[in-house]
Amino acid sequence: MQRPVLALLTASLVLAHGRACAAEAPTTIPAAAVQTAEQLRNEAMHDDTAYQVVKSLTTEIGPRLAGSANDPRAREWAIAKFKALGFDKVYTEAVTYPLWVRRSEHGAIVAPFPQSLTLTALGYSPGTPNGGLTAQIVQFPSLEALKAADPGTVKGKIVYIGYRMHRTKDGHDYGIGGGIREEGPPTAAAKGAAGFLLRSAGTDADSRTPHTGLTDFRDPAKSIPAAALSNPDADQLERVLAYGKPVTVKLDLDCGIEGQYTGYNVIGDIVGRKYPDQVVVIGGHLDSWDPGTGAIDDGAGVAIALGAAKLIHDLPQRPDRTVRVIAFANEEMGLWGGRAYAEKHAAEVGKFQLGTESDLGAGPVYQMSASVKPQARGAIEQIAKVLKPIGVAYDAKLPGGGGSDLSQMHLKGMAALTLSQDATHYFDWHHTANDTLDKIDPQQLAQNVAVYAVFTYMAAQADGDFGSAPGAFAGDGAGD
Amino acid sequence: MQRPVLALLTASLVLAHGRACAAEAPTTIPAAAVQTAEQLRNEAMHDDTAYQVVKSLTTEIGPRLAGSANDPRAREWAIAKFKALGFDKVYTEAVTYPLWVRRSEHGAIVAPFPQSLTLTALGYSPGTPNGGLTAQIVQFPSLEALKAADPGTVKGKIVYIGYRMHRTKDGHDYGIGGGIREEGPPTAAAKGAAGFLLRSAGTDADSRTPHTGLTDFRDPAKSIPAAALSNPDADQLERVLAYGKPVTVKLDLDCGIEGQYTGYNVIGDIVGRKYPDQVVVIGGHLDSWDPGTGAIDDGAGVAIALGAAKLIHDLPQRPDRTVRVIAFANEEMGLWGGRAYAEKHAAEVGKFQLGTESDLGAGPVYQMSASVKPQARGAIEQIAKVLKPIGVAYDAKLPGGGGSDLSQMHLKGMAALTLSQDATHYFDWHHTANDTLDKIDPQQLAQNVAVYAVFTYMAAQADGDFGSAPGAFAGDGAGD
Repeated sequence: MQRPVLALLTASLVLAHGRACAAEAPTTIPAAAVQTAEQLRNEAMHDDTAYQVVKSLTTEIGPRLAGSANDPRAREWAIAKFKALGFDKVYTEAVTYPLWVRRSEHGAIVAPFPQSLTLTALGYSPGTPNGGLTAQIVQFPSLEALKAADPGTVKGKIVYIGYRMHRTKDGHDYGIGGGIREEGPPTAAAKGAAGFLLRSAGTDADSRTPHTGLTDFRDPAKSIPAAALSNPDADQLERVLAYGKPVTVKLDLDCGIEGQYTGYNVIGDIVGRKYPDQVVVIGGHLDSWDPGTGAIDDGAGVAIALGAAKLIHDLPQRPDRTVRVIAFANEEMGLWGGRAYAEKHAAEVGKFQLGTESDLGAGPVYQMSASVKPQARGAIEQIAKVLKPIGVAYDAKLPGGGGSDLSQMHLKGMAALTLSQDATHYFDWHHTANDTLDKIDPQQLAQNVAVYAVFTYMAAQADGDFGSAPGAFAGDGAGD
Repeated sequence: MQRPVLALLTASLVLAHGRACAAEAPTTIPAAAVQTAEQLRNEAMHDDTAYQVVKSLTTEIGPRLAGSANDPRAREWAIAKFKALGFDKVYTEAVTYPLWVRRSEHGAIVAPFPQSLTLTALGYSPGTPNGGLTAQIVQFPSLEALKAADPGTVKGKIVYIGYRMHRTKDGHDYGIGGGIREEGPPTAAAKGAAGFLLRSAGTDADSRTPHTGLTDFRDPAKSIPAAALSNPDADQLERVLAYGKPVTVKLDLDCGIEGQYTGYNVIGDIVGRKYPDQVVVIGGHLDSWDPGTGAIDDGAGVAIALGAAKLIHDLPQRPDRTVRVIAFANEEMGLWGGRAYAEKHAAEVGKFQLGTESDLGAGPVYQMSASVKPQARGAIEQIAKVLKPIGVAYDAKLPGGGGSDLSQMHLKGMAALTLSQDATHYFDWHHTANDTLDKIDPQQLAQNVAVYAVFTYMAAQADGDFGSAPGAFAGDGAGD
């Protein structure tokens, strides 16, 4: 999403490459499968399995920060839920990662106008020293300005960047806001800053609910305390800075990395009748940030995949290929579940028929794009035709990236879709305490289930494949 | 607002009473004063003094819980601001009240599904014992149901009432929500409950920002820990309760009454040229709840009154009567500033020409009503005529209550207005962390200033009075 020009260019390259091997037989979807997909679509639009799943997850488990006390509870919940929905195989695969913990977080303007600030520590932020970190604020208008700054202006200070995100349907402004959150802290640290603050990478201009999220800290020894202010608190800090006096802020963060943790991807298979070792894979991530209950991020994704698979499971007979649902471990702290899965299964990438993950909330899918071999373009068009009546446009020029964790399998060579959801309000609630069940519209969630049920089933029944092979889509520009 | 039928009935009584003494000369406003009021109105609509005042207060001071460290800072701010705006006299009057402090507050569902709850302690709530209060929830659909409950069903439990407030222009649903918050805790305590929880008395259905506010606890020895859940947390608790298993909640509140505190009403006079001892009084309250910065409640009210008075101050000559602005101390914990003022000045009530306080946010005024003597009804109609072009309707049947603190002077016999503001969104933010400057629309704030400048000036210049006298408006049904 952050690189549309590159995406278009490289998609053209894929198409050009495709023409050179056009002698292969085209992949097609049999008429009976199309008809069943239409039935699945219509049924899904009135099915509430997904809503019941995300309701159960957010009510019975709630926040699911990777490695927290709720991590194993969520895993047990997932295993039980997969089994209850009738998956033929339910299993887990280990995912090991650094354990980051958050215990408490406070912030305050110390001078010139003492008052508390509502903030949240960012992922992999170290804690502040005992008694907190008190330092002067130095403000930069952008990440680029910080990168260009003389370290002398930054040393010993708390860097603040106040970029204000705006709502867009495709959520592209998160490319800037999230980029500041990720790159800002290590950039400031490298210049000798004592700490880092940003205006939350979120579009809720009026809410005192700061947005947490990942930083790009790679080395704990080179990391500094980093936190996000809520939008109104950022407004307040900027008003105070506008008085032109030195502004001193105190950060008191009790958080940090505490060794390693081993979590698990939870995987369920509906085993294919004809080609059990060929897999259509869908999913979401089971972990969530801790302030909210992980409803839109990403209980919805897990629920959409489970809801779609359940409808396929309930058909009179198993699909031709295996339908796999993965509830990934620790997406939030750096795609740990997705990367572990891709490493473990890279050699089998050719057996992955098609895949994508849902991880942009619960808004309706409005666009599909795909990275597939040229001979499968017709099959994608067949899928698009079934999805068109429920509001999904097909953009044949854009690549398909596979979503968040499954982007890693796509990088290995798995044919993949991008199913763009309406993200207009997603970044109002993303990574905040407000990520709760009430943000999900059951009817919009059902539309997502319909989309996933349709493409999953049609790919599972296709005559032919979509081009998965080691390195098949290298450089297609998919940036999900 | 909670008793419209009573209000209409008693307003009729006032009118009936009026006819009996219609021989008095009518109060009228001279043509020159009407013309000046029109100029003030037009000027106010483009004046940003009030916005600058509330910006200054919320930025430089922020939260102003009565008796907190910010209480004297806010007082010094107010004294300096009154002086800077040119008031002829600036002085304070002491207000003594119980000091309630809030240090920390946490809540959690312990069983069957452990997870934290976002909540806020209510005013005058005692703290929980060391280690917190853990007890089973007993749910009631309404305050009436709690009142009717057998104490045996409540004893030792945490009472929960989940009334959901809805947005209305006049904010009348706060009569129910606020009533549960005030009466629910002592009612539960009297039946032996261990604690009290309610769904926040607020209309922000999707925000994790709980609404604090006052309880009706009168006796610390008979008080129990009481708190409000945010709306999404109330949804969550109700979903958990719907599983039909016993639900155990832990409250950990560090708060309570700590002796007494003496704060101050801050008062500024623009001294009348002809009748310096006759006063038109307007104001707001200087204290605020602590989670937010007290922008709409009630920085806006203080700012509106100061903005209006400043425009009158800047006229070529002082008004005939004194214009008084009061920034009241500790309205939030029980009208302490307003009651102290009324007690101190009850004997002079006949010298208070007319008054009202702004304390319902920063939405535009859409309606005026008045409790005045019948012979002053024509003068009120003259005021209404000047206000009509800026969207203010006049309801001659409803009484005027004087606002929150000044309701106490009205109870003593002061002629008073009610200036109804559009409160559609007021209870989204009221008493929450979200009560911040960004909720104020400068243009809507300016409309309020125009309304206050017009009526204040016209009342100050009137030929005749509005009927203030000891006990003059007893039982007029004003419930502000």
